[in-house]
Amino acid sequence: MAVALTPPERLEPIAGLSLSVLAAGIRYVGRDDLVLMVGAPGTVTAALFTQNAFCAAPVQVAKAHLAAGAPRLLLINAGNANAGTGVAGLDAAQASCVALGRLFGESAESVLPFSTGVIGEPLPLQKILTALPFLKEHLAEDRWMAAARAIMTTDTVLKGVSQQIRLSGGTITVTGMAKGSGMIHPDMATMLAFIGTDLRLEQAELQTLLAEAVADSFNAITVDGDTSTNDAVVCMATGASAVSLADATDRAHFAAGLQAVCLTLAQAIVRDGEGATKFIRIQVQQAREVQEARRVAEAVALSPLVKTALFASDPNWGRILAAVGRAGVAELDISRVTLEVNSVVIVRAGGRALEYTEAAGQQAFGQDELLIRIHLGRGVATYTKYTCDFSYDYVRINADYRS
Amino acid sequence: MAVALTPPERLEPIAGLSLSVLAAGIRYVGRDDLVLMVGAPGTVTAALFTQNAFCAAPVQVAKAHLAAGAPRLLLINAGNANAGTGVAGLDAAQASCVALGRLFGESAESVLPFSTGVIGEPLPLQKILTALPFLKEHLAEDRWMAAARAIMTTDTVLKGVSQQIRLSGGTITVTGMAKGSGMIHPDMATMLAFIGTDLRLEQAELQTLLAEAVADSFNAITVDGDTSTNDAVVCMATGASAVSLADATDRAHFAAGLQAVCLTLAQAIVRDGEGATKFIRIQVQQAREVQEARRVAEAVALSPLVKTALFASDPNWGRILAAVGRAGVAELDISRVTLEVNSVVIVRAGGRALEYTEAAGQQAFGQDELLIRIHLGRGVATYTKYTCDFSYDYVRINADYRS
Repeated sequence: MAVALTPPERLEPIAGLSLSVLAAGIRYVGRDDLVLMVGAPGTVTAALFTQNAFCAAPVQVAKAHLAAGAPRLLLINAGNANAGTGVAGLDAAQASCVALGRLFGESAESVLPFSTGVIGEPLPLQKILTALPFLKEHLAEDRWMAAARAIMTTDTVLKGVSQQIRLSGGTITVTGMAKGSGMIHPDMATMLAFIGTDLRLEQAELQTLLAEAVADSFNAITVDGDTSTNDAVVCMATGASAVSLADATDRAHFAAGLQAVCLTLAQAIVRDGEGATKFIRIQVQQAREVQEARRVAEAVALSPLVKTALFASDPNWGRILAAVGRAGVAELDISRVTLEVNSVVIVRAGGRALEYTEAAGQQAFGQDELLIRIHLGRGVATYTKYTCDFSYDYVRINADYRS
Repeated sequence: MAVALTPPERLEPIAGLSLSVLAAGIRYVGRDDLVLMVGAPGTVTAALFTQNAFCAAPVQVAKAHLAAGAPRLLLINAGNANAGTGVAGLDAAQASCVALGRLFGESAESVLPFSTGVIGEPLPLQKILTALPFLKEHLAEDRWMAAARAIMTTDTVLKGVSQQIRLSGGTITVTGMAKGSGMIHPDMATMLAFIGTDLRLEQAELQTLLAEAVADSFNAITVDGDTSTNDAVVCMATGASAVSLADATDRAHFAAGLQAVCLTLAQAIVRDGEGATKFIRIQVQQAREVQEARRVAEAVALSPLVKTALFASDPNWGRILAAVGRAGVAELDISRVTLEVNSVVIVRAGGRALEYTEAAGQQAFGQDELLIRIHLGRGVATYTKYTCDFSYDYVRINADYRS
């Protein structure tokens, strides 16, 4: 079902960052569902979490640990979200951190826990505690592919990417993996992404760089407009390359590389979106400011009417205009609005372009990948949003999941 | 498919307000699709229109005529929205007003045009002009049912209601009809509502009363979050009863009656929502202010994940909490949040209620009509939103419409 998405052939190891996996029986039978990631001492970790007020227990614990200490141990389970589980859920998440920290001679604050899966079920803590010694024993730097597979829930394709970046002091590597096929996955909540690099830098700078990279990648995608209770993006930098950011050029190169990794992973999530049959880029140009461009892109990306028309390959451009019109842009002069889909000009000066034909529209809307370009004619700001269409399978997946 | 919705047995005539219908062949064959409504001289007319920047040609013309004059003639066609039709569309709408006005010895400004149907097709002006003399000849006060049927597009049930209101000076009647089965209907755009009363009052007061009545009725419903390019609600008061609003009590009684008519029509639109199998009331209580309650109600009402779970009768309350959590309520204390569905308490103090059972949840979510009540525990403001579920048929209707 995924749109033009294939798993990576391999993921490059990151020196100083080890991983292990285990079939702990959290929910699934006969497949890995528990992952440990360990950065060598000195590793710095940055993370961004869901803005949802009902954030899950592991998110609350991870936020507190990131603020309190310098975590270098990540514990990730698939199959149970540990969300909507109240105080017992918090206790379970905290207990797993205490046990894992002790095993490594570290405080509980050195551990960040992550969960994805069914909401409202108690976390099977005992299974996790029992698994920890095995996970510690089997750590290895070349286990990214196995880890990327273990964090999947209803993902249909394993998601990961590696990139090498040449800096003035040498070449460093960035490897990332992600899971998610809906902003909230039905009961199997969540988008999670874990990125490692052997770059050497301060935690504060890594946090800034990660926030910048996420803004136009993970924060620019939507499947259904819902934000999970468990979403998180984490980046660990081991420093094992001994290469650091020497100047602004290095910083720009690393930022671009990190951004590319994030964008590849984020787009992979949309391409594997629930029921997706098309991958859509919505590019809004000539806005007064980025926020305005973003509001218009989101109105189009979230419209069920637009998304069902895209599913049907129907050049129903009136729905796109209607979404632009209700985006709340103050004093929008519709006579300056232009709409193009895959380079076919459909609307010019707010009305159907003279040269536009239904046949050209059908050809454009028939593609698997669509670039919808909207010019507002009122400024120079731009914003691009990534989404997928809305199919029968979206309803099937989300309505039938628990039945 | 409509949820517990039957057409009215009859609609009460309004003294001084005449209607006629004709099968003009705008798009349909063998059914009425053109309606004329004429208020006796002295009738005052109030109207509210879509906020969509890409509003259709008839909306632009109707807005201008309402501002310029004292319209008492309404011309409504089904089958063609006259939207996305540029200057030619404006010219056609204006030409129909000029011709109809002349027929009645009035200016074009005395006519308000309304269109609903396919977007982007030229309005068949000649057919409309040809029909006008017939429509004028056949005006009668008891034609509300025929008119309510003629304005339908993909509506599956005729929508109308009459109410008598006892005021200090006598009893007056309010009759309304509406069409719409999606906020935007695919190509068959639009929600339209036409209300008549024999009350005597000033236009400015009618406009105020209508705006108040619409706020918690037509503006409180959503099928898919999309706002049509053609939406309009109109109220004509003929004054034929010679009863006016003598005091604040009369005003309150009339306001309540008008509000009830609007709410019945608005709910009928949701009950006939595209693919709807359930009718949902989302009542948010204990908010700091109405806007806050409204934001939370809308986040729940618009969530595709919530709506697909409702379709499946799945007590997937985690999705409702997640929608509440991402509604952007500042400093929401989740430990004070309560969630009830059809009087079954599911969440108390932010977590699953101790007495809650999956069986009770399934019983509650299995009903055709659901009241979802969310207490935020931070104030006294309340807001209720009306919506429907999200089914396979929603996708089918919206994806397959033009194929």
